[in-house]
Amino acid sequence: MRTNRVEAFSDGVFAIAITLLVLEIRVPEDMTSLGPGLLALWPSYLAYGISFLLIGLVWANHHVMLDKIHRVDRMLLFLNTLLLANVAALPFTTAVLARAVSSGHGQRTAVAVYGGWLVVGGIFFNAVWLWALRRPELLEPGVDRSWTAAVARRFLLGPALYAVGTVLAFFAWRPAIALFAALIVLYWLPISEWRSR
Amino acid sequence: MRTNRVEAFSDGVFAIAITLLVLEIRVPEDMTSLGPGLLALWPSYLAYGISFLLIGLVWANHHVMLDKIHRVDRMLLFLNTLLLANVAALPFTTAVLARAVSSGHGQRTAVAVYGGWLVVGGIFFNAVWLWALRRPELLEPGVDRSWTAAVARRFLLGPALYAVGTVLAFFAWRPAIALFAALIVLYWLPISEWRSR
Amino acid sequence: MRTNRVEAFSDGVFAIAITLLVLEIRVPEDMTSLGPGLLALWPSYLAYGISFLLIGLVWANHHVMLDKIHRVDRMLLFLNTLLLANVAALPFTTAVLARAVSSGHGQRTAVAVYGGWLVVGGIFFNAVWLWALRRPELLEPGVDRSWTAAVARRFLLGPALYAVGTVLAFFAWRPAIALFAALIVLYWLPISEWRSR
Amino acid sequence: MRTNRVEAFSDGVFAIAITLLVLEIRVPEDMTSLGPGLLALWPSYLAYGISFLLIGLVWANHHVMLDKIHRVDRMLLFLNTLLLANVAALPFTTAVLARAVSSGHGQRTAVAVYGGWLVVGGIFFNAVWLWALRRPELLEPGVDRSWTAAVARRFLLGPALYAVGTVLAFFAWRPAIALFAALIVLYWLPISEWRSR
Repeated sequence: MRTNRVEAFSDGVFAIAITLLVLEIRVPEDMTSLGPGLLALWPSYLAYGISFLLIGLVWANHHVMLDKIHRVDRMLLFLNTLLLANVAALPFTTAVLARAVSSGHGQRTAVAVYGGWLVVGGIFFNAVWLWALRRPELLEPGVDRSWTAAVARRFLLGPALYAVGTVLAFFAWRPAIALFAALIVLYWLPISEWRSR
Repeated sequence: MRTNRVEAFSDGVFAIAITLLVLEIRVPEDMTSLGPGLLALWPSYLAYGISFLLIGLVWANHHVMLDKIHRVDRMLLFLNTLLLANVAALPFTTAVLARAVSSGHGQRTAVAVYGGWLVVGGIFFNAVWLWALRRPELLEPGVDRSWTAAVARRFLLGPALYAVGTVLAFFAWRPAIALFAALIVLYWLPISEWRSR
Repeated sequence: MRTNRVEAFSDGVFAIAITLLVLEIRVPEDMTSLGPGLLALWPSYLAYGISFLLIGLVWANHHVMLDKIHRVDRMLLFLNTLLLANVAALPFTTAVLARAVSSGHGQRTAVAVYGGWLVVGGIFFNAVWLWALRRPELLEPGVDRSWTAAVARRFLLGPALYAVGTVLAFFAWRPAIALFAALIVLYWLPISEWRSR
Repeated sequence: MRTNRVEAFSDGVFAIAITLLVLEIRVPEDMTSLGPGLLALWPSYLAYGISFLLIGLVWANHHVMLDKIHRVDRMLLFLNTLLLANVAALPFTTAVLARAVSSGHGQRTAVAVYGGWLVVGGIFFNAVWLWALRRPELLEPGVDRSWTAAVARRFLLGPALYAVGTVLAFFAWRPAIALFAALIVLYWLPISEWRSR
């Protein structure tokens, strides 16, 4: 299959998952005190913001990756589908996170599930990349091998750091959320090795 | 109509249907025992996983098919729309399946409906392919006829095997679900005749 | 703006609206009698089927139209957005129709609203086409004027026939639904003047 | 990253957000008086109409902008993601607006929130444009600088006018809604400086 079809389909799933996040923000029932009701939804806004930037980031990195993949075999397609299944479920883990923080119960579990799910997603992401890297016939001809190795190291760092946050969640969920947020913003920053493309 | 427009529209429907699957996984109401509450949702996760891989598979096979179709006539468009109507309804049959398994009631009916719907979808899929195969003006010039015949046999096997699972559901719904899951994974595997493209 | 961007955006809205139709089919609450519960949902299935084929049809005709439009000005973009706002609201009128038939109350109102909304959509559709036809700089160079006139006549017939169904709904809602279904299937059939493209 | 990928992803988010607006229009519960029940939903229809035209407008202007952007750097991608996060949340502010007007409580807050969110979106929109304008390597070669400056002025006017409406909302929410509606229609109109492209 041509890579551009996989790219278009993945883009569709990313775009839909990112937009469905808003459905988890419920309009307050009581309109007589709408101001306080809207303010009380801050956990939903926070979870929305983090997950939106996260999916946007995965989308951007997914393109960096697919740009270097010339051809797609059946196994790569399968691994990519697992990755998409992970991303498409983020509105659920996001809603769990928002609801737990909002209710004041189950925050540790919710943050750990949120982080654990990111670890799984990171593993799928790396599986796609490593599968392609070991099959030169799938890569763009003339791709810079030192660049792909640097990117692979960077991609592997993701799930490792999310795993730290997941473990942290059991002891202190607030710093764990802060870590996830910080990681996402950090990964958005331009890094010199990316620019060398 | 140009095939690439049909491809783009179908891709859109596939991507949306696959991403809407997550909406059927409801956040637990009780946050004071969030861990057990999340574990109790395993039927939803299982149904999500199976249906996600299934729609991903139909999407991939749909491309294998459309890659060989050069031009689209009105009837092929109509048959393709019926196929899309089938795929777009999978979030519903998936939700029915998850809810029945979760509640401990109506599992046979739910699994049979799930399987029966796959049979209908398989028939629509084959109708698109067989319609095109009999109209050489719709096919890519120089398409390998022994390859198209082999693919047609393979495509026809799908609804036949799903029909076996559907009948099985009335006697033993657990093995029927296992059969559906096995079929989907099996169909994802690369087969030599696919590679010959 | 280039026509292909308008096409892609419109395709997106069509694909999403058509796939959102399924969200209105609610899983039965009572799983102890799932079979009868699923059968009782037939108004939802019927409404889903009609609206799915309808949106698929509008999508197909929209391409026939945009294929002949070379350039898009601001007013055409505005009229097209009104058309999309009409199509995107079809999941709502479809749900109203299904709920009314299912409850046994309000069927006339629901069918008339469903039909009236199709009339409005047909008018927007024609507005896009007639706006373009009167501005040769927007049309593909060398487009066959007798063909565009024939298509325009055919497009104008749509809202007229839907208006008949809408009026009919106040006296006999079942035949009105049958008329809408018949019109949609009829419009899907290949007609010689379409083939001349 | 190539601009056309950003364009396609943004188009997806715009198309989904615009189509999700309909999910906030709830089918009336009571089918025995469906006509009055549907009429009572007018605040939902009004909010749907305004937000639909608004997102359509942002989509159109986003294309005007990206048409002149040749290359996308990491920061521009980040700013664009913030803009998309704003647009994707519009179904929520739209639902709040409709619910408040419908309930007769909290209208000022709802209109101010709706307007304030438009101001934030306008700021993100301008941030994307101004970031690109100051980096000639990101712009299309040979782009007309007097045109880009005129567009920038026009883009900056948007959040300023929305801010007026937001302040107005605290004193008179009906005129504020009317102002938002008027601004959207006004911005849809073709203006000579746009035509010069």
